[in-house]
Amino acid sequence: MNEQMLLQEALREAQKGLREGGLPIGSVLGDRHGQIVARGHNLRVQSGDPTAHAEIVCLRNAGRRRDWAELTLVSTLSPCIMCTGTALLFRIPHVVIGEDRNFKGAEELFQQRGTRVVILDDRECIAMMREFIAAHADLWNEDIGK
Amino acid sequence: MNEQMLLQEALREAQKGLREGGLPIGSVLGDRHGQIVARGHNLRVQSGDPTAHAEIVCLRNAGRRRDWAELTLVSTLSPCIMCTGTALLFRIPHVVIGEDRNFKGAEELFQQRGTRVVILDDRECIAMMREFIAAHADLWNEDIGK
Repeated sequence: MNEQMLLQEALREAQKGLREGGLPIGSVLGDRHGQIVARGHNLRVQSGDPTAHAEIVCLRNAGRRRDWAELTLVSTLSPCIMCTGTALLFRIPHVVIGEDRNFKGAEELFQQRGTRVVILDDRECIAMMREFIAAHADLWNEDIGK
Repeated sequence: MNEQMLLQEALREAQKGLREGGLPIGSVLGDRHGQIVARGHNLRVQSGDPTAHAEIVCLRNAGRRRDWAELTLVSTLSPCIMCTGTALLFRIPHVVIGEDRNFKGAEELFQQRGTRVVILDDRECIAMMREFIAAHADLWNEDIGK
């Protein structure tokens, strides 16, 4: 499993969201062979659904399945407590995070429950999110319930 | 705010889900005057969306808003860790739970973060969920990521 390659695909999702006028946060689910089984990006602005964070949209697109324990959830940004709870509900054992400098979600919950978390501290993810927050603080704050 | 009245409405949502062939779990969001601002029931079976728990559907139906801190989230069953995380993300301060005998979600997280949780231990909620789990253990286990 190449975590960097999966992150690049999550980044493409984030960029798609940005082009659509939404938040630049992307997510993919990879299987044990590194194949992508689902992808998604934040659709809150586009769809008006406050729960449409990238990871939720990605899991929604993954559909009903029983192989969650074999999957890796990848997100360009540290998952918020809703998305963390979602990964924990489905017992996804491995989470790859592009960056957690602009926002640190509920990583301690992952640690408490034994999820393997890898933070790639990716320069492109950091810059993309920093620029978005600077330009659209209102949209960003709404995204995290502030 | 009449918690029992709100629970009756959540129960109606759950019964609707049951009639549709889905899981009998319902949710409403009430404002400070006891008015219902959104409602929803579990749609996982009906829609194929694994994240479509009652509370998520209810928040989705509530749409983008900034008054979460004035709302009460009501659910017929103790919210799982995904739905708990969702309520925490939006800083919903008050959660009313029909019952937590058939399933105890992540109530300790609500306690840790200061959410006011009321458990009504409602006989009708308990019986409805007990019967469903006995008849459809497979669907129920899938709902909680097992």
